[in-house]
Amino acid sequence: MITASTLWEELERIRAVSPLIHNITNYVVMNTTANALLAIGASPVMAHAIEEVEEMTALSKALVLNIGTLSASWVDSMVHAGQEARRRQIPIILDPVGCGATSFRTAVAQRLLHEAPPTIVRGNASEIRALVFAEQSTKGVDSTQTSEASLEAAQLLAHKSQCVVSVSGPTDLIVTESGLLRILNGHPMMPSVTGLGCTASAITGAFAAVGSSPSAAAAHAMAVMGIAGEMAGERCAAPGSFQTHFLDALYLMTEEDILRRLKLA
Amino acid sequence: MITASTLWEELERIRAVSPLIHNITNYVVMNTTANALLAIGASPVMAHAIEEVEEMTALSKALVLNIGTLSASWVDSMVHAGQEARRRQIPIILDPVGCGATSFRTAVAQRLLHEAPPTIVRGNASEIRALVFAEQSTKGVDSTQTSEASLEAAQLLAHKSQCVVSVSGPTDLIVTESGLLRILNGHPMMPSVTGLGCTASAITGAFAAVGSSPSAAAAHAMAVMGIAGEMAGERCAAPGSFQTHFLDALYLMTEEDILRRLKLA
Amino acid sequence: MITASTLWEELERIRAVSPLIHNITNYVVMNTTANALLAIGASPVMAHAIEEVEEMTALSKALVLNIGTLSASWVDSMVHAGQEARRRQIPIILDPVGCGATSFRTAVAQRLLHEAPPTIVRGNASEIRALVFAEQSTKGVDSTQTSEASLEAAQLLAHKSQCVVSVSGPTDLIVTESGLLRILNGHPMMPSVTGLGCTASAITGAFAAVGSSPSAAAAHAMAVMGIAGEMAGERCAAPGSFQTHFLDALYLMTEEDILRRLKLA
Repeated sequence: MITASTLWEELERIRAVSPLIHNITNYVVMNTTANALLAIGASPVMAHAIEEVEEMTALSKALVLNIGTLSASWVDSMVHAGQEARRRQIPIILDPVGCGATSFRTAVAQRLLHEAPPTIVRGNASEIRALVFAEQSTKGVDSTQTSEASLEAAQLLAHKSQCVVSVSGPTDLIVTESGLLRILNGHPMMPSVTGLGCTASAITGAFAAVGSSPSAAAAHAMAVMGIAGEMAGERCAAPGSFQTHFLDALYLMTEEDILRRLKLA
Repeated sequence: MITASTLWEELERIRAVSPLIHNITNYVVMNTTANALLAIGASPVMAHAIEEVEEMTALSKALVLNIGTLSASWVDSMVHAGQEARRRQIPIILDPVGCGATSFRTAVAQRLLHEAPPTIVRGNASEIRALVFAEQSTKGVDSTQTSEASLEAAQLLAHKSQCVVSVSGPTDLIVTESGLLRILNGHPMMPSVTGLGCTASAITGAFAAVGSSPSAAAAHAMAVMGIAGEMAGERCAAPGSFQTHFLDALYLMTEEDILRRLKLA
Repeated sequence: MITASTLWEELERIRAVSPLIHNITNYVVMNTTANALLAIGASPVMAHAIEEVEEMTALSKALVLNIGTLSASWVDSMVHAGQEARRRQIPIILDPVGCGATSFRTAVAQRLLHEAPPTIVRGNASEIRALVFAEQSTKGVDSTQTSEASLEAAQLLAHKSQCVVSVSGPTDLIVTESGLLRILNGHPMMPSVTGLGCTASAITGAFAAVGSSPSAAAAHAMAVMGIAGEMAGERCAAPGSFQTHFLDALYLMTEEDILRRLKLA
């Protein structure tokens, strides 16, 4: 699906083009995902008012929908924005944060899947299983399963919803109707920083925005996240510093870093 | 109430069990309190939609209610979540941010006190005085008084509401109906970082979640905050860096750090 | 309009008086602008509920209105707060974030201009042009123009709305009905950190709060932002670290730093 070369080219394209990414996302991560998008070279915008979401989506090169702190009026805005994106063939990334933790979240994620069909679904294993099997999760927004445990669910989802499914974990899975890629990059400190999954979804939007195919965009994004995580993890011993170094790594990442580190399976 | 040993044991328990803490809190601090909970080893979730707060509370080991950027619909959600927590005997931490600054905040804090009775109230001296005496504050969300000036109010509140009252300041007070503990740890730069009071409330939730008695949980949390503040303060000279070092200290804190630093009176 | 001396005096005054600044601002930047206000010595409060905005404004020394993530109910609160500020002669800073990106944003910014007339409007060139000429912008919340391209619009706005207009960019313009000042301080990494424009508006509030004339307050704020940016940029090579060093610089800035760096034209 991807190579170090395609990753470097697409990263360079993001830095050159600075695509506008429209995020309707959760309160916890708005600041950090905006900073991650800027660090990688993209241009973030956050807007959720029903009066403006369609216009904002129309200006954008990708739409990221994230249900991390949802409420009814935000869901309506997500549907409107998603339908505008579909009309204009703008890629949609859905992050079903906490799907399975409550029946409301599961229902909203399933509604978005149908009313604003995503190009790419990016979640952790518990979320993907909950989205497909309506399984209940017991750990809030954190995964209780390895990404491998969600493989069947991801394949079903990719087939039924005609989308790419990107499952994050120590091993990331990129699942299409007919293909599967495993990305082995990453660092054990990543789950100790809030919102890195949400950041992965935003970064996925940035790669989708510059024209990578959906499967390549999903893979490029998870690879960049994992490589930046490794670069950060080598520079510090705790999550406060990690967050700073992670943003720095997104900004400073060179072709050499990618060539030396990218690990696929 | 507590010793270096009990503090270390309970901190180890949080790291081992990773309790889910449900926060209905303010926009300003969502990211930083989530990161503080992760750094200490707990698992944060933020959810405020009336459709899901009861289910999310039911999954959790503690509920933190914080009125820092309140609005009417959020208050309803706080009441629902609080009542579910009471039914399930899940500890509730109430942080009456800015109580006394406006009559709306004072009324909301008093409503929560009655309709979702907290296990622990954690606030600054001005907030505790306003909650008990309906006194008006003149400085927004910052305290204009020392914690000692709130001692009588805290004791009245502990008695009338049958809760533990945790008052933060250069000296922290842990007030129960019959007891009083002073914690002397901390660093003068702490008030220059936004939301460390809110973080204290979230961390109080983490200690309450692993089974410390309410008074011990309140004391363990304020001691950990103060010790992490000292560790951060020794490593930097300004609040931007302080925030990073503070998170790192929560993650890296050892038994030795606690033994060497804990100061009670 | 300003000198290194007046800037240092007013910065010292903020640190001494710690004025309360009421912010009704966007979710993305609440945490970072609160921290910037604390770092400079001011006292931030964020409150948006219609039930309390007037009381909160009445306690404050400046009101900052920022439409970065607006919705209808927030706009009503901004109008109420703004009208209370006018009644009490409390300076109002309006930041028309993303004005021009959607017709809703443009309409809201123009409504605030009329119903809650600002003392100072602080925006980027695209926003100021959109506010005056109802011009559509094509890049979300980032400017597509240099500040010079907005000079005519800024002068018209200053005249028609009897306010000071502060346009940020590599060169900042401070525009009054009869005067113009250019501030040359700053660092190329500043646009790579989210919300530094919003931070500039909050800091403008802090200078307005301690009694600088509106034009001096606008100029002092942009000069402090630019100088802090230079100090941060000399200490790091990427935006994650830059954000930390920027906050540190606001806190640590000395008279010497100002004397050595301030560049006006």
